[in-house]
Amino acid sequence: MSDLYDYPVVIEIPVAWGEMDSFKHVNNTHYFRYFESARVKYTEELKILDFMNDYAKGPILSETSAKFLAPVTYPDTLSVGIRSVTAKDGKLIQQYAIWSHEQSRMVTLGESTMLFFDYKIGKRCDIPEELALRMTKLEPSLSASLKSTQS
Amino acid sequence: MSDLYDYPVVIEIPVAWGEMDSFKHVNNTHYFRYFESARVKYTEELKILDFMNDYAKGPILSETSAKFLAPVTYPDTLSVGIRSVTAKDGKLIQQYAIWSHEQSRMVTLGESTMLFFDYKIGKRCDIPEELALRMTKLEPSLSASLKSTQS
Amino acid sequence: MSDLYDYPVVIEIPVAWGEMDSFKHVNNTHYFRYFESARVKYTEELKILDFMNDYAKGPILSETSAKFLAPVTYPDTLSVGIRSVTAKDGKLIQQYAIWSHEQSRMVTLGESTMLFFDYKIGKRCDIPEELALRMTKLEPSLSASLKSTQS
Amino acid sequence: MSDLYDYPVVIEIPVAWGEMDSFKHVNNTHYFRYFESARVKYTEELKILDFMNDYAKGPILSETSAKFLAPVTYPDTLSVGIRSVTAKDGKLIQQYAIWSHEQSRMVTLGESTMLFFDYKIGKRCDIPEELALRMTKLEPSLSASLKSTQS
Repeated sequence: MSDLYDYPVVIEIPVAWGEMDSFKHVNNTHYFRYFESARVKYTEELKILDFMNDYAKGPILSETSAKFLAPVTYPDTLSVGIRSVTAKDGKLIQQYAIWSHEQSRMVTLGESTMLFFDYKIGKRCDIPEELALRMTKLEPSLSASLKSTQS
Repeated sequence: MSDLYDYPVVIEIPVAWGEMDSFKHVNNTHYFRYFESARVKYTEELKILDFMNDYAKGPILSETSAKFLAPVTYPDTLSVGIRSVTAKDGKLIQQYAIWSHEQSRMVTLGESTMLFFDYKIGKRCDIPEELALRMTKLEPSLSASLKSTQS
Repeated sequence: MSDLYDYPVVIEIPVAWGEMDSFKHVNNTHYFRYFESARVKYTEELKILDFMNDYAKGPILSETSAKFLAPVTYPDTLSVGIRSVTAKDGKLIQQYAIWSHEQSRMVTLGESTMLFFDYKIGKRCDIPEELALRMTKLEPSLSASLKSTQS
Repeated sequence: MSDLYDYPVVIEIPVAWGEMDSFKHVNNTHYFRYFESARVKYTEELKILDFMNDYAKGPILSETSAKFLAPVTYPDTLSVGIRSVTAKDGKLIQQYAIWSHEQSRMVTLGESTMLFFDYKIGKRCDIPEELALRMTKLEPSLSASLKSTQS
């Protein structure tokens, strides 16, 4: 678990038996659900949804990927960490790491790219400044990357 | 397939490999997705969603059940039929039957109960008369059951 | 939660954001996953899977149903209880109750019927006596119902 | 659809209403199910599963990614194409493209990496020669890439 120390948001998810497929390990699609759940939690910490409602600007999932290091089987509990690695030019790149409690090791890594949109004009926009501020509060290491956006 | 002749709406769904679980047959939860897909198609035939937007009255799923007659495995294509059996007192009871093309037999039966709500007052209401008319057009056998509602 | 006191096995499941559908509440199919997760946990408590491997006798899901009392939305945590109500003639009927931590009330009730099979001969069989014993240990109230099976 | 002409295996999948999430478009996790269904079909064309049973060598999903070009909504039918782009050193890289019938355009692109394993020794192995032959028959453009593996 100590391996997730540099992920500012970590959630815990019990593996469901029904998430295993015919090969008797968790089916690949569910890891993207785990990532999504961590991303939503991160979004909540930043109150991004309120922001989307008030300013009509928000992120859209553009790309996502997973690298499977080891299969996961039921029963297990997973800790899913998320962190932001780049936030500039209206693009937020985040990384995921999934730690298996049963195996005591990282079992999956992932990445996603969100693009910010101004819903009123239907076009891409910069990451709103207030959001950028909230993100650097949550993740101080991001600030350098963000500065380049604002200048 | 001829066994579905008394189901006015029938949809075809290819079974996905990933819908099988560790027991190597389609997991029970997916049958409720198949039922739902048939129900949505039935709803479309009746243009119920337009109705919900215009009159702010519509159905909410209250109960659903499935009886599994035989396991289904990938590859297969399923024909899912839906019909209404009772429509009165603001309650719509529908039945489902799933036919396996590979096994040439019915593999699952199901039922659901929808309750109609008037969203403006947040309370149950009768099935709107216009909807009842559309339903008896689609399913003439329903008319007797409906008449008792309106009187 | 006190309402789940008469369910011998109770599991806790965090609702995932992605389990909500277009109507912005948890989609009906996921409740059957919640039931299944409780059923698997119950099965583990009784070590039924070991039994299935050793004696080649085990249960198959024959029917399942849900009654939705109130919609569930993210974020929430659910406590899912399972109990057995009938266990005779090779048939195990179980009930489920789902308690919402956010709403502090029961939001869904359910039932399932498992039939026992002797895999070697491919036919239905009685609930094996050892399993019946384990079940009455876990659920003393079942003993009356079971006795009739064995006589 | 003509855009899928260079994908040797293409499957058709009807979008289910229930695959949409709260944002009212198909949830990201389902695209990986669509990819998987195409991959399984491709695997069938090559009879890889038989091979896995007979030789105890087969592929394991190591990485997968998706790039979302446009959101998909119900109702729609998707054509999902798969092709192999690299097959050497025990690694098979495949690409996916999803065409929306409603939108008449490509809505999602994807990629996956499979690693071949020799299950008897539990270690990675080269793509078995017979499989390589079957693949070049299905996809002649792959032969150059494969040759380097065998030498």
